[in-house]
Amino acid sequence: MAKLVVMRHGQSEANRDNVFTGWSDVPLTELGYEQAHEAGKKIAKLSIPFADVHTSFLKRAIVTANIILDEIDQNYVPIHKTWRLNERHYGALRGRNKDEVKAEVGEQQLKIWRRSFDVVPPKLTKADEEPRYSKIGVQVPRAESLEMIWNRSLPYWVDQVAPKLLAGKNQLIVAHGSTLRGLIKYLDHISDENITNVEVPNGLPIIYDFDDKLHVISKEISK
Amino acid sequence: MAKLVVMRHGQSEANRDNVFTGWSDVPLTELGYEQAHEAGKKIAKLSIPFADVHTSFLKRAIVTANIILDEIDQNYVPIHKTWRLNERHYGALRGRNKDEVKAEVGEQQLKIWRRSFDVVPPKLTKADEEPRYSKIGVQVPRAESLEMIWNRSLPYWVDQVAPKLLAGKNQLIVAHGSTLRGLIKYLDHISDENITNVEVPNGLPIIYDFDDKLHVISKEISK
Repeated sequence: MAKLVVMRHGQSEANRDNVFTGWSDVPLTELGYEQAHEAGKKIAKLSIPFADVHTSFLKRAIVTANIILDEIDQNYVPIHKTWRLNERHYGALRGRNKDEVKAEVGEQQLKIWRRSFDVVPPKLTKADEEPRYSKIGVQVPRAESLEMIWNRSLPYWVDQVAPKLLAGKNQLIVAHGSTLRGLIKYLDHISDENITNVEVPNGLPIIYDFDDKLHVISKEISK
Repeated sequence: MAKLVVMRHGQSEANRDNVFTGWSDVPLTELGYEQAHEAGKKIAKLSIPFADVHTSFLKRAIVTANIILDEIDQNYVPIHKTWRLNERHYGALRGRNKDEVKAEVGEQQLKIWRRSFDVVPPKLTKADEEPRYSKIGVQVPRAESLEMIWNRSLPYWVDQVAPKLLAGKNQLIVAHGSTLRGLIKYLDHISDENITNVEVPNGLPIIYDFDDKLHVISKEISK
C-alpha cells in the first residue's frame, strides 16, 4: 500500500514570537527554513516517490513543501494548495501573545481555547475580506474550533487524498498544527477528550502505513 | 483583458558551463537564484494578481517560479507543472560543451542545430527511461527540433492558458529558451526564417497585453 507522510511547517515568525496566527500569512524564520531542509533530508532517506503534495494557502506551509520537494529531488511532483488545510482561524486571539492571553484569562481557559475539540475562541466582530478567498467563493471565518476545522478539512482528505492512497500513490501533506491534529484524531481514532493532549511539532515528518481498507498499520515519527 | 507574463528560468549550471542540457534536470546557480529574486521584485512592481502559474517538469524553471511567487507574495497561486513546457531535448548533443561542438562541426552547423525551426539535432540511439515521464505515459524523445517543441507545447497553450486569459485571468509562464521561442513565434507571428534570430535571456520578465481575440496589443520586456 501507499505511504502517507504528514508534517507541520517549519517555525514561523508567529511561532517564534509566541503569537496566535491562524489565517495570517506569516513567513518562516531562519530556523524554519533550516527545519524544512532538515525534514527534506530525512524524507529523502525514505526513498518514497510521491505522486502528490497537499498544502494550505499559507506561505509557511507552501515554502516548507517547496523546500522538501527540492531536497528529495522531486520538484516536478504537483503541489495542491487548498484553503481546507489552512491553520485554524483564531478569531479575536489572532496577533495576541499567548502568555499575555494566559495572564489575562488563566492557563485553564487558554488550554481550552487552544486544545479542546469543540470550543470556539472569541470571534472577530467582522470577517476579513481577502481576495485570495473571496475569488474562490470562500468566506473567511470569524473564528474556528478544532471541530470546525475537522468539518472543512476532512472532505479534502476523503475526496482528494484517500482515493490516491487507495490507488497506491504516495502522498505528502504539509500543513499546520490544528489541521494535522484534526487529521491525526481521525486516522488514530483519538477521542474528543484525548485530542486535548496531542501536539504536532514543527518540521518532524510523520510516516503512516495503511492496510487496503486505509486503516493505519504503523505510524512513525522521523526524528 | 488579462495579462500574460513569460520568463525564462534563472541561470542554470548548464547555462554557466555552456553545455547543452534539454531534459536533464540541472539546478540553478547562485546567479540563477539571484536572477529569480530580481525578476520577482520586477514583477512585484507590476501589481498583477495571477490566477495561475505554468512551468515545466524541470527544477530550474520550478524553483524560479517558486521564488517569483514568494517575492510577489502570491505563494497560494497554483503552479501547474507540465512536461509540455520542458526545454527542447537536445539528443546526442546533451551534456556537450557548445564551443567544443562548434570546433567540431563549425559555427554554421551549430547555429542550425540551435536556432533553426525544423532541423532535429543528432538523435540518441535509445530514449531515456525516466519514471516521472513513463508514469504519465510520456515517452522521452531521442531529440527535438523547435518545430517538435511547438507541436507539443502549443496544445498546452490552447487548452490550458489561452482560455484562462480570455476569461480575464492573469497568467505567468516560467519556462525555457526553446519553449518560449516557440510561444513567442506563435504570439508575435514570427516566420520560420526569422525565429533563427530570436533569443530569450534568462530571468527577464516579458509582459504581453491582448485584445479580446487574444491578439497581442503590446509587449514589453521588464529590464
